[in-house]
This record gives sequence, structure tokens and C-alpha cells, in this order.
Amino acid sequence: MTIHEPFTEEVKTDEIFLSRLMPGEDLFASLKKIAKDHGIGRGIILSAIGSLKNVVFVNVRPHTGIPVKTEDMIEIEEAGPFELLSLEGNFFPSQEDGEPVIHLHAILGTSSGAVTGGHLLKARVFTPAEIILGTLAGSSVYKVKSDVTQRMELLKK
Amino acid sequence: MTIHEPFTEEVKTDEIFLSRLMPGEDLFASLKKIAKDHGIGRGIILSAIGSLKNVVFVNVRPHTGIPVKTEDMIEIEEAGPFELLSLEGNFFPSQEDGEPVIHLHAILGTSSGAVTGGHLLKARVFTPAEIILGTLAGSSVYKVKSDVTQRMELLKK
Amino acid sequence: MTIHEPFTEEVKTDEIFLSRLMPGEDLFASLKKIAKDHGIGRGIILSAIGSLKNVVFVNVRPHTGIPVKTEDMIEIEEAGPFELLSLEGNFFPSQEDGEPVIHLHAILGTSSGAVTGGHLLKARVFTPAEIILGTLAGSSVYKVKSDVTQRMELLKK
Repeated sequence: MTIHEPFTEEVKTDEIFLSRLMPGEDLFASLKKIAKDHGIGRGIILSAIGSLKNVVFVNVRPHTGIPVKTEDMIEIEEAGPFELLSLEGNFFPSQEDGEPVIHLHAILGTSSGAVTGGHLLKARVFTPAEIILGTLAGSSVYKVKSDVTQRMELLKK
Repeated sequence: MTIHEPFTEEVKTDEIFLSRLMPGEDLFASLKKIAKDHGIGRGIILSAIGSLKNVVFVNVRPHTGIPVKTEDMIEIEEAGPFELLSLEGNFFPSQEDGEPVIHLHAILGTSSGAVTGGHLLKARVFTPAEIILGTLAGSSVYKVKSDVTQRMELLKK
Repeated sequence: MTIHEPFTEEVKTDEIFLSRLMPGEDLFASLKKIAKDHGIGRGIILSAIGSLKNVVFVNVRPHTGIPVKTEDMIEIEEAGPFELLSLEGNFFPSQEDGEPVIHLHAILGTSSGAVTGGHLLKARVFTPAEIILGTLAGSSVYKVKSDVTQRMELLKK
């Protein structure tokens, strides 16, 4: 199967992990370490709560088309800290080297009550983050770079 | 039991499905097709990440009371595309015809860093959407139109 | 183990509960009652959809450091109602008295399309809320007040 077709596969989330990340930890490095330490090849964020600082995220410009160009992606860097209001995402092994490819979208609260966020590139933990990860057993999916979306997309074997 | 009482029922999410939707797909039609193709009568969005375009969503005016009137619901239509920062929701069979009734709330990122969203009525997939659905086995709940909220509400038999 | 170390523990979410809360219910009191009535010691919000009113939430000021001071936390009170676009969080028993400590972050839609939210302190249900709770069986975690973050933090025994 190519990376350009829809698919549905049945998986299992029998293994669930509750983690606390501590202030200053790099969110992506810590999630990658948890995945490796506990042998979690494929997983999703089932729940996440806490706060983040030093965040970098991207959003796409209005009227952007496919293929998405680099200049269509607007990068925003903020010191924060922010309440972590939502963290959605998953990780799958890279087809190239088997390393976990972590794909996260974060929504962040500000002191005015306004909310910001996007496709997350970098973040550090501010107050402790309580994260529940669900494994996706039975999945045969890898991540591979797409020339169309300029992102890592799911490759189902 | 009527649609006007609180309840709690124990369910199971033993069956989990990982789906990729492709650019241009109608989000609601595709979710409905996945539910039908895989015999998922009742389910929840456990995780969703990707981006959307051509979205229509509603929010309620401040100081709206119950019953909610049509004029209290403000409809917003946006071309996007937007990062899909969060997708919450569920589907249950309509009591009338057994068809899946899909109830979704979406949160969308914009290139300024501002975030928008609401009760989702329409959307198309922009870059591929990675969606994990959990079934709710053991549930005896249907959806039926409420004269009070003007929405499809849970009917527990 | 102290409350100042990262940890990961494996848990199970075998028991899942679907609840409907009705207009006017106190969100925190109702979740606490569900937890007690069904013997759910530890759990997470797997999915939540509906609308809220009379909300009080907090966010932290930019450049706040640790320890977080009371004056760094900005409290916002809003009558609403708002679409409940996302509800993230968990509950664990207090080490002191075993009562459920509920930690919630809410994201709320407004009629302009703007989105607001934060660490939730109070809320009432507006239109019925459909909430799916997952238990965290096998966890040995309690909540205890931290002098560093001024919040209830996870204590793993």
C-alpha cells in the first residue's frame, strides 16, 4: 500500500502507561525515551495535563494548497509558560531507522484567557506533566517522508 | 429511561481502529463509512491529528438559555486550511433508522497562532488525518432529537 | 519515591464508563459522585462533549517561574454558555483522605469563533455532557499538595 491511500486497521491498546515528566524536561526527548525504555513501538496520547514553556509550533497560512510549501508554514516561538490544555498525537517507527517519529498538536492557555497552539515542534515541561500513553499493538504502520505534504506520513505495509 | 436524566453505564473499548483519511475526503461521510464497513455501532474519537479545510461550525451566543433556539447558534464557515488541534466526539445509532449520528467538536489552529473552533457541522480533510476510534461495546444507547436542546441526545433504553 | 521525580508505570483501562450529565449539574461534584458510586479510584477523561456555563478557570502569567506564586495565576470567570471543545484531565485519590482529586483543563468555544479556556476550577453543565471515563487500574499513585508548584501532584508509592 502507498502513503496516498486511505486505510483502516484494527489495533489493540492493551498496554497503557502513566508518566510524569518533570520541570525542564524536553517533551519530545522524554516521550521518545519512555517509548524506548518500555518497548512501545506505536502509541497515542490518551490524556495529557500540565503546563509547557519554550514552545515552538507551526500553523499553515490560509489558502495553502497541496503540496504544502515550507513558506506556507508559519512558525511561532513563545517563552510561555502556558497551561497545556490539550495534547493530541501519536508515534510510529520511522521506516528508515525504526526511531519513534512523534507527531504532536498542542493547545495552550494564556493569562488573558486566549488560547494558542499548533503543530508542536519543541517544548519543555513547566509544571509536571501527567501523560497517559496507549500502545497500538497489532499495527503494521511505519512513518515515511511524503513529497506531497512535506511531513512524515503513515506507511501501511 | 428518558433523555432528561443523568446516567452512567459501563462499556468496553476492546476494539480500536486506526484510520487514515486522505486529502479532500468529507470527514463526516468518511467516519460514517468506516463505522459501517467495520460494524462499529457506537464509538469515540480517542485521538485525531492532521489538518482540515472548508469547515463549518457553530457556537452559542453568550447568555443563551435552555431551550436553545436556532438564532442562538452562530454558524461560522471558513475555508482554512487549519491544523486540526483537537477532535472530540462520539457516534451512536439513531433510534429512528440506526444510522450513525456523529457528534464532533473541533479545535483549529490559524497562522497567527490564534485558535478557533466549535461544534463541527462540515469539514474536508486537508493533509492526511490520522484518527483512532474506540468502540463502546456493551452500550445500549441510541440518539434521538430533543425538543429542549434542539440536538440529538442520548437515549438509554 | 518523592513527588519531584519522573516516573512511568504500566496501568490498565479495562473499565470504561459512559456518563451523561444534565443541565445545571456541577461538573466537579458530578464527576466525584460517579467515581464514588462506581468505585473508580483513578481515572482519565477519554472523551467529553457538550457545553458548559458559569465557568471559572486559571492560567499562568507570561514569564512565571517555579515555585508558582498565587499572584502568577490569573483567574477568569465567565457566564457563558460555551461549547465544551475539549476536556482533558484525570483524578487520583488524595493521600490525606482518599477523596478523588479532580484535575481538569477545559477548552471553550465562543460565538465569535474565538476559543478560551484554562485550568478549570468550577463549571456547570449547560446542554447535556457526554463523558467517557477510563479507569487506571494497577496504578499506585496518590495526590499530595506540592510546596513547589502550589498544586496537587502525583505521589507514586
